[in-house]
Amino acid sequence: MVVAKASSPSAPSVNKNGFPCFNNGSTMPLSPNSIINLDKGDPLIYESYWKKMSDECTVVIKGWDLMSYLSDPSNVCWFMLPELRDGIERLHNVVGNAVTKDKHIVVGNGTTQLFQAALYALSSPQDPHPINVVAAAPYYSEYQDEVCVVRSGLYQWDGDAAMYDKNEPYIEVVTSPNNPDGTLRGPVVKSEAKGKLVYDFAYYWPQYTPITHQADHDIMLFTFSKCTGHAGSRIGWAIVKDIEVAKKMTTFVQMSSIGVSKESQTRVAKIIGVICNSYQNFGSMESELFFKYVRRLLRERWEKLRVVIEQNNVFTVAKFPRAYCTFTNESSETYPGFAWLKCQEGIGDCESYLGKLKIIGRGGKRFGGGPEYARLSMLSSDAEFNEFLMRLSNAKRERDLMY
Amino acid sequence: MVVAKASSPSAPSVNKNGFPCFNNGSTMPLSPNSIINLDKGDPLIYESYWKKMSDECTVVIKGWDLMSYLSDPSNVCWFMLPELRDGIERLHNVVGNAVTKDKHIVVGNGTTQLFQAALYALSSPQDPHPINVVAAAPYYSEYQDEVCVVRSGLYQWDGDAAMYDKNEPYIEVVTSPNNPDGTLRGPVVKSEAKGKLVYDFAYYWPQYTPITHQADHDIMLFTFSKCTGHAGSRIGWAIVKDIEVAKKMTTFVQMSSIGVSKESQTRVAKIIGVICNSYQNFGSMESELFFKYVRRLLRERWEKLRVVIEQNNVFTVAKFPRAYCTFTNESSETYPGFAWLKCQEGIGDCESYLGKLKIIGRGGKRFGGGPEYARLSMLSSDAEFNEFLMRLSNAKRERDLMY
Repeated sequence: MVVAKASSPSAPSVNKNGFPCFNNGSTMPLSPNSIINLDKGDPLIYESYWKKMSDECTVVIKGWDLMSYLSDPSNVCWFMLPELRDGIERLHNVVGNAVTKDKHIVVGNGTTQLFQAALYALSSPQDPHPINVVAAAPYYSEYQDEVCVVRSGLYQWDGDAAMYDKNEPYIEVVTSPNNPDGTLRGPVVKSEAKGKLVYDFAYYWPQYTPITHQADHDIMLFTFSKCTGHAGSRIGWAIVKDIEVAKKMTTFVQMSSIGVSKESQTRVAKIIGVICNSYQNFGSMESELFFKYVRRLLRERWEKLRVVIEQNNVFTVAKFPRAYCTFTNESSETYPGFAWLKCQEGIGDCESYLGKLKIIGRGGKRFGGGPEYARLSMLSSDAEFNEFLMRLSNAKRERDLMY
Repeated sequence: MVVAKASSPSAPSVNKNGFPCFNNGSTMPLSPNSIINLDKGDPLIYESYWKKMSDECTVVIKGWDLMSYLSDPSNVCWFMLPELRDGIERLHNVVGNAVTKDKHIVVGNGTTQLFQAALYALSSPQDPHPINVVAAAPYYSEYQDEVCVVRSGLYQWDGDAAMYDKNEPYIEVVTSPNNPDGTLRGPVVKSEAKGKLVYDFAYYWPQYTPITHQADHDIMLFTFSKCTGHAGSRIGWAIVKDIEVAKKMTTFVQMSSIGVSKESQTRVAKIIGVICNSYQNFGSMESELFFKYVRRLLRERWEKLRVVIEQNNVFTVAKFPRAYCTFTNESSETYPGFAWLKCQEGIGDCESYLGKLKIIGRGGKRFGGGPEYARLSMLSSDAEFNEFLMRLSNAKRERDLMY
């Protein structure tokens, strides 16, 4: 959370309102004294691709377009534009990462809203106690805040799914690839109690990880922010098997925000169309195919990061297994959107250590992990990433000076 | 709520998913057997104006525009585009309906989200009991659902503000002009307990009511949906005096949806600019000025409705006092966005009665009022409004047949 970070010791530069200074998307080299903010996963890495494709993806919205609350009264999710629904189904068919056939799609203001919609849909006001919500540690740092924000009597946070042994109903969030650590995951709760699963597939796209199967679960969440990098559009979607759950999720989005921006919906539909057309048109230049292009950018960043980490002997980062990707028809590695750095013994608090290098990361404790870890965005602008690498490569010397 | 309405006895036509059939914005005459859905306040009346101004208001968004989560890190509301903030301030200065000087603006996904953000900001997890939320009956039907949706432990619904006599802290929502009945309002709670006020000014715009003063309260909510009719954009804003409240409201929007669609924000800023330019440019044709144009449309509808109601002797609707409008420099009446119809004695349930005329309204009980009332949108398309008038004018005969 921005507000919380502002008072963190690792955020040395704040503005007059007490908020941290963010870097913009500039490609200009950064000064060695600037703050590198890799706390949020702002996906600026994608800008270079969309600059190339800017005209093809242009949307023009006239003054009287898109005025009504309603989009498609025949659909469970009545505020979803039909062209967005069609685009989402087409994209999953092209990529092969999720089954949409005989399922319902619910659009939301990002997966943040849809995660809360899923909790609402899977809980019941008739139950005497709030249902427990768990996720295997290290888990996405915001789940807990989102579950707890208004102290719901329908659901409550219960921490690490691996430790869950209550004989009470629960909801387990399965994040795969996982945020923060990039691991591929399935459910872990061992309890005999009745459990429901929500799959957060924000990063189950070919630039991050091999697509090994068409996921086919009751509730699957996806976000456009991490698929193409259009985070400012605030578009997420849920693929839902049970129509009653889809109806309840729709009701939640209705009661939270009476639907979702149509300007964003129409733009996302357009961009999805451009991506799918390029894959389904044999005349496309291979180097310009979206997932191939951004996968190369991510792979290059990970390769550079691993070289620096191996040289300076201050941090470690996990190796990921290779797998065959049904989308690219190649065997390849996972290149997560975040690096989950572990400091070597003796350093103690990884977030504080990075703070001394004027790098803002998010400490491991926020994820239900240890302080020796910190999460850092791999999706920043080139200028930020290059300066980040520079500072990490100097980290050994800094450590020798400090300890 | 759409889902709830589907099972209502007054919604005789539903589709295969059990959802009600909505009318589209067509200007084609409707068949006498069609369902006229005036349950929601979908502001289709505005389309004719924006068709005329369509090109001036066109926005063009390129593929790499607006990608980041962040908009203005120097602002409390870090996800708000600076041009939207400037536009909102300019619009209130032009209209003279609210003081923005020395205040903070928080943008949200409609006032629906900002209302909940205000409850979050004004309540405290340290308090032993949830704070009571009240509004004077008849109150906007959705407040209760929005307060209760996830059974918050921070705040709870306590009904009619006029009946509040507990010696416990409370939040009173003051809606003026009021939805559903169009009355001008101030706070009504008489309790000695400590109270906080949230002003819902969705309809405090010159087409609906004379602008009598610049409102200047701690928290004031506005929505673009009712200002210009762009409901599909889902843009609302709060004008907030206390920076700590503005920070907490921002945090709520962040935890609910990580901000607000930038596509919508940029388009709303553009449209506001067109409106303000026309008022500040002496060359503008007066008949094309936005508020003047739509006020005329609303006045004509209200005049027609009053003629029909007086003729058929089945319903009554309140008269509103005239007042001097500081924006138009004329004395004028209030023309609410909804008609709050009261059925004459003997009819009993107004919603059911309208249902027999195949008109979907929202019954008075949903607003904390009596069943003899129903709320009907005055903002529908011309085709719907004309057919609605036709059926009302036949209502007397229908009543004679039925009773």
